[in-house]
Amino acid sequence: MKYRDAGVDIDAYNRSLRSIGRMARSTFTPQVVSDIGQFGSLFRMPRMKHPLLVASCDGVGTKLTVAQLVGKHDTVGADLVNHCVNDILCLGARPLFFLDYYAESKTPPGVLVEVVRGLARACRSHQCSLVGGETATMPGWFKPGEYDLVGFIVGIVERSRVLDPSRIRPGDLLVGLPSSGLHTNGFSLARKVLFARAGYTVKSRVKGIARPLGLELLATHRSYFKPVYPLLRRLKAIAHITGGGFYDNVGRILPRECSAVIHRNSWRPKRIFRLIQEKGGVPDEEMYRTFNMGIGMVLVAGRLQADAVASSIHGARVIGKVVRGTFGVAVV
Amino acid sequence: MKYRDAGVDIDAYNRSLRSIGRMARSTFTPQVVSDIGQFGSLFRMPRMKHPLLVASCDGVGTKLTVAQLVGKHDTVGADLVNHCVNDILCLGARPLFFLDYYAESKTPPGVLVEVVRGLARACRSHQCSLVGGETATMPGWFKPGEYDLVGFIVGIVERSRVLDPSRIRPGDLLVGLPSSGLHTNGFSLARKVLFARAGYTVKSRVKGIARPLGLELLATHRSYFKPVYPLLRRLKAIAHITGGGFYDNVGRILPRECSAVIHRNSWRPKRIFRLIQEKGGVPDEEMYRTFNMGIGMVLVAGRLQADAVASSIHGARVIGKVVRGTFGVAVV
Repeated sequence: MKYRDAGVDIDAYNRSLRSIGRMARSTFTPQVVSDIGQFGSLFRMPRMKHPLLVASCDGVGTKLTVAQLVGKHDTVGADLVNHCVNDILCLGARPLFFLDYYAESKTPPGVLVEVVRGLARACRSHQCSLVGGETATMPGWFKPGEYDLVGFIVGIVERSRVLDPSRIRPGDLLVGLPSSGLHTNGFSLARKVLFARAGYTVKSRVKGIARPLGLELLATHRSYFKPVYPLLRRLKAIAHITGGGFYDNVGRILPRECSAVIHRNSWRPKRIFRLIQEKGGVPDEEMYRTFNMGIGMVLVAGRLQADAVASSIHGARVIGKVVRGTFGVAVV
Repeated sequence: MKYRDAGVDIDAYNRSLRSIGRMARSTFTPQVVSDIGQFGSLFRMPRMKHPLLVASCDGVGTKLTVAQLVGKHDTVGADLVNHCVNDILCLGARPLFFLDYYAESKTPPGVLVEVVRGLARACRSHQCSLVGGETATMPGWFKPGEYDLVGFIVGIVERSRVLDPSRIRPGDLLVGLPSSGLHTNGFSLARKVLFARAGYTVKSRVKGIARPLGLELLATHRSYFKPVYPLLRRLKAIAHITGGGFYDNVGRILPRECSAVIHRNSWRPKRIFRLIQEKGGVPDEEMYRTFNMGIGMVLVAGRLQADAVASSIHGARVIGKVVRGTFGVAVV
């Protein structure tokens, strides 16, 4: 018996390693001082006065199921990179490098290559080096065609430039930035409502949504790095609206004596959110706890800065404010 | 319909976050400047002249299946941390911080806590800070009780101290360090042979193996950091014997004009490897390509250094040498 008989083909794994190696190298900044395929990746620290590293880890979650149903694998990489980039942006950091983990039991040849193509493209657009990763074949764990995808990012911020939410004060304003759709959260509920309960498929056409439902759900998680990074000095804090929605994500940046009031009428959720709510009979609060509802990032700025911030980012608008209180986050 | 009805319980997730947060904090070094639960983890760079970051990512693979069959979840964390620590040690680095990814569909409460307990213990013993991670609930993806576990490590090395395998010359010696067992590689083949073909279970007793088969298979991946780090100046290169066995891992550190001859009679593989080979009728070469065969790490040192290195690490011995040639790795 050979390892291949147990479902693991080390030679095939090495072949696809070579192919993804080329794509990974296309993301390398001059800071990368080792090649792909070593035991670890060497990265030269940029010169800074008091550098802080910022690290974060995320998965794509069950948005992968939609990608697998549609058979489109070149967008989940950008979902993952952009999610991670947004997370560390909340602390004021810019990305340095990225590693990915891809796990499967059996997927068609080419799927991994498509996934890495998406990762590499999104990394390049952030000058973030895709320095390594791990490809795990776990026979019997995943259904045929199913794979998991996880990303790790390391970024950097000068100590004096770290966003410090303790500076938030009552009267500060919340600026919402538009999302492209669900981003990478709430997919378990969305799939249950749309596919299991309402009987849609990824090919279904729904009134008010321009593309088939599967492609609408796959809309790429937007990166807010380019518009927001140049404005960091004007901001006190940032919340990336991911799992836990407005309540958990705006909630966790608020100092003890501050709460946030978000005015839901200050923007109109995209059709896809209203469709999920209608078809699933999902209570309002649950919607705002599970989904971003069309607002992928919330910036906190002083009253004098907020208008300038909002007017310099396309689609941004003031959606609420910080008040004195301990109730946390209210969506009114 | 609520998110909980789709199989995701955000409140339960938040509760276990608090518990694992306490364990994670127990690993914090003074370099950690943020708490658990932010969008990213802030880590102060140690002061060094020309610091290089070293990053690596690994999974536990299907060793997890054995842990899940045995119902023992506090050792896979150490497997993962030690695997990652060994990987970056191959470049001369010491660990700074670690992040983990845990994915499940439905596991009993307490499993994640056990897993993180093991991660935290192994991190503490390396002064490596467990600064964050991601817990993904993916309904319908994993069998009940099954979970995946992935780790991401960042370490540091002074530029002048990076291990540089290009210094390897014919005549250098290979010093093998004993493994505790399979470590984290070859489990798909081991399980197929031992459980599917030979009909053993994790509770089976096998002659020559002191503990039940499941516990023998779970023997913790050994960390070589403590004995090897102080000796780095005496070494030219290190290979961590993981997936791909001796051929791929010793092979990838060899300069173009060098090959390696490993004498298999210079050590006696542990009983577990001989059991797998017998029961599976696995060819010799396949064994040395899939498993570590009792040697978890290979150090490369000049002839004058190798004896001193071997005698200062318990159980270490010279197992082969570097020769001129392009055949790669030969196990003779």
